[in-house]
Amino acid sequence: MASENLSPEALEIQSCLSAPDGGLMVCDERLVSLYPDFFDQCDIPTMFLTAGEQSKTLHEVQLLYAFFCDNRLKRSDTVHVVGGGTICDLAAFAVSTYKRGCHLHLYPSTLLAMVDAAIGGKTGINFRDLKNQVGSFYPAHRIILHRDFLKTLHQDELRQGMAEMLKAHMLFDELPLPVFHGGDLPNDQDLLSYALYKMSVCQIDPYDRGERMLLNFGHSFAHALESLSAFSIKHGDAVAIGMNMACDFSLELKLIDELQHEAHKRTLALYPYPAELLDFVRNIGFEDLYPYLKQDKKNGNSLRLILPVGNRIKPVDVSED
Amino acid sequence: MASENLSPEALEIQSCLSAPDGGLMVCDERLVSLYPDFFDQCDIPTMFLTAGEQSKTLHEVQLLYAFFCDNRLKRSDTVHVVGGGTICDLAAFAVSTYKRGCHLHLYPSTLLAMVDAAIGGKTGINFRDLKNQVGSFYPAHRIILHRDFLKTLHQDELRQGMAEMLKAHMLFDELPLPVFHGGDLPNDQDLLSYALYKMSVCQIDPYDRGERMLLNFGHSFAHALESLSAFSIKHGDAVAIGMNMACDFSLELKLIDELQHEAHKRTLALYPYPAELLDFVRNIGFEDLYPYLKQDKKNGNSLRLILPVGNRIKPVDVSED
Repeated sequence: MASENLSPEALEIQSCLSAPDGGLMVCDERLVSLYPDFFDQCDIPTMFLTAGEQSKTLHEVQLLYAFFCDNRLKRSDTVHVVGGGTICDLAAFAVSTYKRGCHLHLYPSTLLAMVDAAIGGKTGINFRDLKNQVGSFYPAHRIILHRDFLKTLHQDELRQGMAEMLKAHMLFDELPLPVFHGGDLPNDQDLLSYALYKMSVCQIDPYDRGERMLLNFGHSFAHALESLSAFSIKHGDAVAIGMNMACDFSLELKLIDELQHEAHKRTLALYPYPAELLDFVRNIGFEDLYPYLKQDKKNGNSLRLILPVGNRIKPVDVSED
Repeated sequence: MASENLSPEALEIQSCLSAPDGGLMVCDERLVSLYPDFFDQCDIPTMFLTAGEQSKTLHEVQLLYAFFCDNRLKRSDTVHVVGGGTICDLAAFAVSTYKRGCHLHLYPSTLLAMVDAAIGGKTGINFRDLKNQVGSFYPAHRIILHRDFLKTLHQDELRQGMAEMLKAHMLFDELPLPVFHGGDLPNDQDLLSYALYKMSVCQIDPYDRGERMLLNFGHSFAHALESLSAFSIKHGDAVAIGMNMACDFSLELKLIDELQHEAHKRTLALYPYPAELLDFVRNIGFEDLYPYLKQDKKNGNSLRLILPVGNRIKPVDVSED
């Protein structure tokens, strides 16, 4: 436990993105053709990255360090990171470790990143197929939400964000249930509510020792599924499946009764699971996931899972025997 | 500025090292034959590293991650690091970024590491010949000083630690001047005084924004000299030369008068500079160091140097024109 407090992140919504006027930019390469006006305005050195878990490697981190070095980035300079969760995770890790940390502004471009990944200061890259095995705690100095990014997002990318919104709703039912069908985008107010919920939990517990662990509901199973599928299953989908597995496991351990189980499953059934996801999951048992669960970084000496227990959702230490 | 506070490090002196009873060990390979009793007692998985700046690379970090992964290191497990400054810098960086930070115990084995490098939470590796270009702030959970390690230290390694002690004395004259000649080792009380001095400055200013910057007296020049010599000049020697350069530069900028300059130089003349070091430095001018100074991670938008100004030593922003 290195530090006891992290400075609060500054969150803002921008209806019209203004080009950064200094520093460097790191950006998802796909955004350039989608948002030509924004990129035309930007005249700072920019490095383009390919989104996806396969990019979250030490090799890519090294390329980022080289980019920073070539452009003589100073500690007081800002790196503007524009992209989804994987780009934010990767670039923020590089920024957090270059000269022991430079200024970081995140412009999350996916729903998942806006309501979850970009918030709370967790950075990470993968190591040996294990997700976020290497990383740091480094909250961005500014997080800029720009809803227009959602307009060009594919339906299955939107769904990934909705999975985290569904999870947040299950943990804190004052948050609205996301609208899964009909193609409506969340409005600014909803975006802010989810982002602020995540931010408030992370401010109470920045280092993931108490309250924040609840946000991992469904995530231990999800990380195992992602690893097992060599990251062909997307994160949100994996979390949605993971929450189902957590509920089933709770019932098996008699932590919830049939009625409670049914209520959770009814809410989780609202998620639009794609057919190929269900096909993949059908033949996977707990014994397939167990080796990955044991490696999950949130575990102490026993296997710690976030599970429904009675009317609550809370951390449960499951013996490894 | 990610976090505002770091938890205090726990410092202790052990007259007889006790073997760690759990976790993993990372250790300078040279120590094994020098301290067979200690290593005979240890039965935890151990990785041996070669000391020196040339080891502080991303490649070595990757080997450490693999060692942690092979041994299923958990966030709550401790990595015991036994070695000098370069081993501590390198291993602590790996520990700080593995699963976003595991428990870290440092057993500094050199004088330099005991009074300086192991204290204050700066970790680092080199990138493209630039020293500590990549790193983190991550104070060790425990630092164990064991004076017996000094008994097997070569004279020129002892000298490196004395350079940092000399620097500390110049900044805070209540600290004793180190004894440079006669082969006496500092006693436990002196070791503690220097270590606690460094620790107290770092606790006031963990992120190097104010008070702690003073500890960089001589260091910007030193890092430049080390880079310029491809790390053939040792760190303490470079700092001793760097403090001389800082004093000369202050005189040139008229920040001190001839008398003040002479007083500083008289103290600095006590340091036992080796002949080959003086030979190397003789033909180096400010213009040779300048490109490296500009890259130094402590600089903001202007060149910030720690220089004697009147009767004090303080940060001075030197215009880059």
